[in-house]
Amino acid sequence: MEQLKAIERAVENISKLPSIGKKSAERLTYALLSMKEEDVEELLSSISDLHKVIHQCKICFNLSEDELCPICKNNERDHSQIMVVSYPKDVLAFEKIGEYSGVYHVLGGVIAPNKGVSIEDLNISSLIERIKSNDIKEVIIATNPTIEGETTGLYLAKKLEEYNVAVTRLAYGLQIGASLDYADSLTLTRALEGRIKI
Amino acid sequence: MEQLKAIERAVENISKLPSIGKKSAERLTYALLSMKEEDVEELLSSISDLHKVIHQCKICFNLSEDELCPICKNNERDHSQIMVVSYPKDVLAFEKIGEYSGVYHVLGGVIAPNKGVSIEDLNISSLIERIKSNDIKEVIIATNPTIEGETTGLYLAKKLEEYNVAVTRLAYGLQIGASLDYADSLTLTRALEGRIKI
Repeated sequence: MEQLKAIERAVENISKLPSIGKKSAERLTYALLSMKEEDVEELLSSISDLHKVIHQCKICFNLSEDELCPICKNNERDHSQIMVVSYPKDVLAFEKIGEYSGVYHVLGGVIAPNKGVSIEDLNISSLIERIKSNDIKEVIIATNPTIEGETTGLYLAKKLEEYNVAVTRLAYGLQIGASLDYADSLTLTRALEGRIKI
Repeated sequence: MEQLKAIERAVENISKLPSIGKKSAERLTYALLSMKEEDVEELLSSISDLHKVIHQCKICFNLSEDELCPICKNNERDHSQIMVVSYPKDVLAFEKIGEYSGVYHVLGGVIAPNKGVSIEDLNISSLIERIKSNDIKEVIIATNPTIEGETTGLYLAKKLEEYNVAVTRLAYGLQIGASLDYADSLTLTRALEGRIKI
């Protein structure tokens, strides 16, 4: 049986989302079809708003609804301590455990030549500018414990040697090869506490 | 940290979808944020079209873009054999294995008094009309092998006793308690072949 075109199209698009296979996409499509139209509309409008309302923070490149994100605007945070992460979701992972009171810098990815991501594509020069023009005491490198994340971290550490700033990385309580935002709170806390100087 | 409102709203809506928890919804939201805007638009428009383009077939209540679904319109199918299923996705499950050449009747649910679904809410009277006004030889009851599905099937079998039609149900190769559209092709084929008279 050929599936209806409208269903095929929705299944195809939904299965492009990460960790959603063909079968899940089909189930989701049929679920969407059986949902009330107003609920579907609310879902779609909230997704559509994401791109309209959310931009990058001018300072740290975290996601923000305003020019500056709530963390960069917060005077109670320690602005002399910058944690460097790859993605906005990594900021969320650390904010959830509430153990970190410094600020962030979101690189926007990792160095991955095979995927066409080079050093220039990451927010590195802006990080160096921040270090140069502010009194930054510590940079905590918190890229994912993957080969690409490690490479990016090591490159950054090398790059920051010439500045008067302590460079540390998260301790390995993290499982090598895993993704930072899948780690549980305890692991993240341990990794933060045990951070070492690079 | 409080999440951005736009993100919170998207996460909340996405986590309402079946089998998507809070953490998956968060990952999907961040994935949507990092997708190209045109890809997000295509995704949203395909979902939005589902409700606009797809209706119920006038005869069998399967999903259809036209007044009649492709199965009811198909003269090569055996229109004297009706398989009664609960949901449109169950039609898809059987059509995928290509072993059934009859037609369908979609009830639109199962009898579930605790969820406020009663006999009148299901497409039962239309099924009886089909049996009365056409030369129907067999009705195959293929409701899910759950308590509610069984109850619905038994009710139907009782109801159809007074008509000159063979009523069968799928053999139990199906796992009791599981959902029909999760079953693999072989299980579905066996269940169809071994169907018994109720």
